[in-house]
Formats: sequence, C-alpha cells, structure tokens
Amino acid sequence: MSIEKSADKINGDFRRKSILSLGQFTPQDIDILFQETPRMQTTVEGQQQLIDLKGQVVSLLFYEPSSRSYGSFASAVQRLGGGIIPVQNPEIVASVAKGETLEDTVRTYECWSDGIIIRTRNPGDAAGAAKTAQFVPVINAGDGIGEHPTQALYDLYTIREKFGRLNDLTGVITGDLLNGRTVHSLLKGLALYQNNAVFLLSPESLRLPPKDITELTNEGLRLVEIDSVDDIPRDTNFWYWTRVQKERFASLHNYEAVKHQFILTPELLRTRGNDNMLLMHPLPRTGEIEAAIDLDPRSVYLRRQMRNGLFVRMALLALVMGK
Amino acid sequence: MSIEKSADKINGDFRRKSILSLGQFTPQDIDILFQETPRMQTTVEGQQQLIDLKGQVVSLLFYEPSSRSYGSFASAVQRLGGGIIPVQNPEIVASVAKGETLEDTVRTYECWSDGIIIRTRNPGDAAGAAKTAQFVPVINAGDGIGEHPTQALYDLYTIREKFGRLNDLTGVITGDLLNGRTVHSLLKGLALYQNNAVFLLSPESLRLPPKDITELTNEGLRLVEIDSVDDIPRDTNFWYWTRVQKERFASLHNYEAVKHQFILTPELLRTRGNDNMLLMHPLPRTGEIEAAIDLDPRSVYLRRQMRNGLFVRMALLALVMGK
Amino acid sequence: MSIEKSADKINGDFRRKSILSLGQFTPQDIDILFQETPRMQTTVEGQQQLIDLKGQVVSLLFYEPSSRSYGSFASAVQRLGGGIIPVQNPEIVASVAKGETLEDTVRTYECWSDGIIIRTRNPGDAAGAAKTAQFVPVINAGDGIGEHPTQALYDLYTIREKFGRLNDLTGVITGDLLNGRTVHSLLKGLALYQNNAVFLLSPESLRLPPKDITELTNEGLRLVEIDSVDDIPRDTNFWYWTRVQKERFASLHNYEAVKHQFILTPELLRTRGNDNMLLMHPLPRTGEIEAAIDLDPRSVYLRRQMRNGLFVRMALLALVMGK
Repeated sequence: MSIEKSADKINGDFRRKSILSLGQFTPQDIDILFQETPRMQTTVEGQQQLIDLKGQVVSLLFYEPSSRSYGSFASAVQRLGGGIIPVQNPEIVASVAKGETLEDTVRTYECWSDGIIIRTRNPGDAAGAAKTAQFVPVINAGDGIGEHPTQALYDLYTIREKFGRLNDLTGVITGDLLNGRTVHSLLKGLALYQNNAVFLLSPESLRLPPKDITELTNEGLRLVEIDSVDDIPRDTNFWYWTRVQKERFASLHNYEAVKHQFILTPELLRTRGNDNMLLMHPLPRTGEIEAAIDLDPRSVYLRRQMRNGLFVRMALLALVMGK
Repeated sequence: MSIEKSADKINGDFRRKSILSLGQFTPQDIDILFQETPRMQTTVEGQQQLIDLKGQVVSLLFYEPSSRSYGSFASAVQRLGGGIIPVQNPEIVASVAKGETLEDTVRTYECWSDGIIIRTRNPGDAAGAAKTAQFVPVINAGDGIGEHPTQALYDLYTIREKFGRLNDLTGVITGDLLNGRTVHSLLKGLALYQNNAVFLLSPESLRLPPKDITELTNEGLRLVEIDSVDDIPRDTNFWYWTRVQKERFASLHNYEAVKHQFILTPELLRTRGNDNMLLMHPLPRTGEIEAAIDLDPRSVYLRRQMRNGLFVRMALLALVMGK
Repeated sequence: MSIEKSADKINGDFRRKSILSLGQFTPQDIDILFQETPRMQTTVEGQQQLIDLKGQVVSLLFYEPSSRSYGSFASAVQRLGGGIIPVQNPEIVASVAKGETLEDTVRTYECWSDGIIIRTRNPGDAAGAAKTAQFVPVINAGDGIGEHPTQALYDLYTIREKFGRLNDLTGVITGDLLNGRTVHSLLKGLALYQNNAVFLLSPESLRLPPKDITELTNEGLRLVEIDSVDDIPRDTNFWYWTRVQKERFASLHNYEAVKHQFILTPELLRTRGNDNMLLMHPLPRTGEIEAAIDLDPRSVYLRRQMRNGLFVRMALLALVMGK
C-alpha cells in the first residue's frame, strides 16, 4: 500500500505522468480531470473523431482477465485517434511464455508505444512497471488486490455528477473489502475531501485491513464497520456494492461460505434506502444484486457508471498523453 | 428457430437495427444491401479510406473460434474508418472468467462501443444480446447451430453476381444440415425468392430437421432430400458443400463415421456437374473437397465468396452504423 | 534452409514482394531500406501520423508467442495509418481449432487484408504461406528454427548506426546457434558484406550446423568456432548474445544442462571486451546476461536495438505495401 510513494504527485501537471494510485491526486487534480471529461462525452455521443492521441500507439498489457478496463481503454485510445497493441494473457501469447520478466516486457512495449496500460496479478506491479519504463507513462488498470485508480476516478465522477460535490457525503461499501482494489482506491479518493463517512459491511474474513482503517481515518475519512444490513443508516448518498472475488480465494469452500452473505434486494432498498441515493457496483457481479434492482432508477452500475468510465479514462489519456 | 420473431424487420431502414436472422430481410432489403456493396469493393481495391464509421468503435465479442467472421469484420470496421475492441475467447480473457453473465458482458461492451458483433455457442444468444443491448445494434456472427445471417447474405451476393438473379435457381447443399448454421440462414434466404429448389444431401444423422423443411416449404422453397451423389441433377446452378462439424458431436466415433461420407471430387464434378455452375463452401473445410477442385474455375470458395463476404459486411455496417 | 530459393529476389523493387529470408536481399536492397528508416524515426518521435498504409489492413497471424515481432508490427502498421487484424494463438481462437490447414487460413486472411505478417512453428511455413497467397505479400516474422529476416535487418541497422559500415566487422555470437533463427538470419546478412568475421560460441549440442557453416563460408563470411569465453578476441565490434531456447528442447533435463553455460558478466566484459563495442541480444532473455550489464552504455538490447526494430519494420512495410 505504499505504491503512491514511488509515483510522482500530479500537482496540476498530468503530462507524461504514470498513473498508479489515487494517492497521486489532490482534489485540484481531480477537478482538472473532471473539467476535461464532458468534452469526451460530447464527442463520443456526437461520434466525432478526436485527435488528441493521433500518431500515437498505446500498449494494453493485460495479465489478468478484464472486460471493463480492457474494453474501455481500447475504446478510449481509438476514440482519441490513437492505435492499440492489444495483449491479453501475455503468459500465453507473449514472450512471458518463454520466461521473460515483467521488467523486460515493459521495456519492450515502451519501445513500440507511447504509453502502457497494464493489469497485473500482484500489488505493486504497476508501480514497478512505471519505474522500469523510462520513456513512456504507465497507467495502472488494476494490480491484483492493490489499486485501481481509474476505476475510483470514474466512481467519484459519478457521485459528483449526482450530488454536485465530493464532500459531506455518506456511503456504504459492501463486499470484499480485503481484496477489492476498487474499494481501496475509492476510499483513498473519498479521504481527499472533507467530512465524508463510509459504513463498511463485509464478511468477517474479508474486512478492510486495520492498517488501512488507521491510515484513512488519519486522513480524515470517517469509517464505521457494521455487522449487518440492519445497521445501514437510511440517509446515505450511495451504496457501493462489490463482488466477493473468487479468484482471490485459495479454498473454494471458504469462497462459497461468504459469497452471498450480503445481497442487494428490493426489500433491503425499501427498508434501508432513500429516494435520492445512488446504487453503484464496479462489476463484474456474481449474484449479489437481485435482478429487479437493475431497473431501479437509482441504480447506475449498468450504464451511467461505466459510461463515465469511458469518458474519464479518455480525459485522463488526453491529459497524460495528448499534445 | 424463432430468433427472427424477436428482432425488428428491416423494411428498408437498416439504421441502428440489430441483424440477427435472414428472417428480418425482404428481397427489397437485400437489394438495398447489394446496391451498397460495389462501392465497398471499389474502395477496398483502390486502397481508399472510407469514413462511414469514423469516430465509432465496434466490439468484436467472439465466444467461439472464428477466422472468417472475426477477420472480415475486424477488417470491415477499420476500412470504414472505425476502431475495434477485439475480444477472442472471453471465457478466458474477460470477466466471464469471473462468472459474469452474457447479459452483463453485453451491457458492458455497449458502454464502450457503438456496435457489437457477437459469436456465441448457443442458438438464440445473439437475439438475447440484442434484447439486452439498449443503445447499440448487435450483429449475429453465428450463434451455435442457430443462424449466421451475414454469411448467407454474401453467399446470396455471390450467386447473384454469377447468375444475375436470386430466383429460378436450383442448388445442392451437402454436409451437416442439422448443425450447420450457414445452411439454415442460406435456406431462409433462398426461400425469399420465387421458384428456387434445393437438393439436400447429408448423412442420415445430420438431416435438416423436419420442422425446418415444413417451414421452408411453406414459404415456397422446393426441398428435395436425396440419398446419394448419384441423385444430383446435372443442371444445378450451385453446389454448396459444407463441413461435418466435429465440435457439434458429443462422440468422436460418431463424427468419424460420417465426416467424409460426401467428398467433392473431379470425377463427381464430371459426372454430375455442368459448365456454368458455382462451387461454394462456407469454410473451414476438413477434407470434404479434393485439392484439384481448388483450381477449377467454377470454384469460388477460396476467393470470390470470401472476398464478397468482406464487401457485403462492409456494406451492412455502413447501412446499420454509418452516418 | 532453401527458403530463399522459393522467394523472389528484391533487386531494388520491394513493392508487393513477400519478405521471407535475408537471402532475398543484396547490399543495395539493404541500403534502400536503411535510407527509408530515418523518416520513420523522425515521425515516430514527432508523434506524427504517417499515411503510407492508409486505407489498408494487415493481418497479424501469430502461431507462436511473440512480444517483439507482434508488438512492433502492430505498432508499425498503425503508425503508418493502416489497420490490424490481430490473431494470437490461431490454434485456439481461429478455424485452425476446427481443423483448418495453414494454407486455407492464409487464403482466408488474404481476402480480408492487404498483407500478412506471420509467425509459425515450422521452418518453411512462411515460404509456404507466401506461395499460397496469390494477392498479398507475406512477411516472415519467424518460422520456427528457420529465419527471422526483419530481426536480422534491424540488428544490421543497429550495427551500421554505430560503426557506419557493414563490412570489415568482427563479432561474437553466443548461445543456441542450432535453433536460433535470429542467428541464422543475421549470419546471412553479415555474409553479404566483405571481410566480416564471426566467432561462434555455443554449447556442444547447439552448434551451428556444418551445412550452414559451409554455405556461409562459401559466401565469404569468416566463421571461427570457439569453445570458451576465453577465446573471444578483445577487439570485436559486437557481441550478440542469445538465449538457449527452452521451447526447442524435447527434454527439460538437456535444457537445464546447457541453459546457462555462457553468461555475460561485467567481469567477462572487462577481460574480453573493449570500449567501442556493441552488446546486443535479440531478446527475450532468461538469465544469460547479468543485470549490471543493462546499465552499461555499450549495451543496446533494451532500447536502441528494439527501437530500431520498430523503425526498420515501418520502413519495410512502407516499401512493400506503401503507395
């Protein structure tokens, strides 16, 4: 969790910076990014071709399966006029299969491209890649149970789009708080703003590590661990539901025991929700949301949230790599 | 086989329509598509860059192996100025690996792209995807043993290119008529026109289902099941040979027993063919055509038929997604 | 090793030629290619969009894992304004999975694209593909233990960039000289120029085949097999270190016995090197170079050599496929 220490702070200048952790961002940096985002929405909806990345090529190095990060970044680069080098499963299709290290793979792909977007299995891998890369920026698209900063950025954008602010908010985060990298990054983001509180609800074995609780609390975020959906206060601004991640369990038995401990149902929403809230989820999901919730106007996980993901990632690429 | 019922008829307007089945097309719709096709051929051969899809990105979601559909659609989109999100084997590389449903995957990819081209394992999956997608058109690139409408469209184009018409034709279709989706779609296409007849020749276990025979016959197509190559009439317009599809058999023994029951040989062509016919095959092939046939001027499966596939698919994309 | 015989000599005209072997090139051809290369470097570094391949699409058919060839060609095509059809592992994702032959796959992809870049498992496959393809050029990106001509071309470019010439050079090539296709192509390249000498150092079981030694010697290349790093003369112009290729061994035991027989260390460089030499490696590497060497200013394998790979491949594509 010391990823942010090895990466440069943005401090108002995104150009050629690697993006590894929410810890690099100040609220002012996030403001700059969010000011750039509506231009992306407008052009995508108008099917206009942007040229921010024209003449550039971006490597997509995905060591773990991905639909949202891979797909949205592949789209974002091309909508900005750039080209892509798609690499899914480098263990099979690339020289990793011949015993190549991550370092050499990164050095190789920075020879072909003007930027690298990377998803890896181990926390810190993206920071390592950024340290290895001497010439091009690296964007962390999820490093195991570490961070997923661009996910958190578009989650924050979605919250701000709804409430017009990122301070004075109360939310609930449910699911795998131990292994969920999107959770780790989102909490860091909320801690940047004044007077936010998050209620944490997870299986006993998947609680947010005490070290994280201490750090985030020290930064001013109010964290309240609760044991039951009955403890959710009625007046929250958002519920951020997450999946218990099967791929992080060594034992299938342990996974089965907790995977559906907390389910988002219409009944729960009636008893613990309110009319003006957001229902969010980073996806993928595997049964922790009842189908009826999809149609609820408060739910944004199937469209608004992901759609913002495309726009925010485009804005980030334009700021980091654009001319 | 009721896929077409859930999809809108085209009725002269392709814009933003999902393309799931030959059943959506009238002869007039096919005329519109075929009138657009020569422009594609001219520009491809002139290596000109079209801009019909400029500013757009298309997802290629391929759940089954594919060379022709994947490759030709990837080419078509880019030749029209669009970008691609290539996804092959989503069970391995995408969130399907984490237990995501096809519905959620479709919802996700429609957030990143302006259209989805999908190949799936199960009949009806493409129609299901089109129903799930709320914002972008879905094009069926083969749904298991269901349909493969764009394949049938370029088969029809190839026949019309040769004979100048799609009525008053007699053909032979050989191979796996039970599981062959290209056969199912082509027969639907031929049934749209007057006075067509098809001789059906297949292993006993792989005959066209009686329900299909009844439906197609009711639509006016003359179908004649024959038992031997000796029953092929000499004056047919086309032979449409197909592969017995190993991947549809549960038992390898059953596959081996029938895979090479009907082989297209020079001798057969001499005894049952004529000078003005077309030799077609949707490919891939696995031994059911003798090598010498490749050089026969009547054979179009290695170039003309596939090349038309590129042009017709480009025309379809331009009509469905173009500005 | 008779690949070059089935392919046309370039003789000053690259247009639409398949590129299969160094044997197709004269020194004059290599001059033409290298004169085109700096334009590529300038435009890549200026992030300008070239249009040499605008309106064209190139198939990347990779039957073996690849990072350098796949990535650099994917980048090169798009930097020249073309589109790509990326196919990695066609045995899994393409119709090869249904039993399709390489010939039919090539015929198929030449219907969709204006050129094919192919990596295969067996020597001669690329030449076979070029023979099969009737309409588009084929570029060999490595055919098993056969050749890898574009790798050798950028190795030569890197040497010429340093020394200003490709004659009167002395080099050392170390590693798997039996199975190393980059070695085979590089030696062919060096044999085109006057007065070159190469010291060959390999495990006993991985020596350059006598037939190759005879052929290259007849062409005027001086080859000296040495048994120990102690036999390396001090005044060489380049050391070309290579990996012992695990994937070419039937027995893991045999691989382990020889994989690290020759290691490039600072000590070796001090005792057998000189100040004005190049340290090269085609990568990937698996332990045969000590980490400290990476920082040595004489080493070019992590940046200069690969970066030249991008530029030379762009130049080649522009000459072969450009307008």
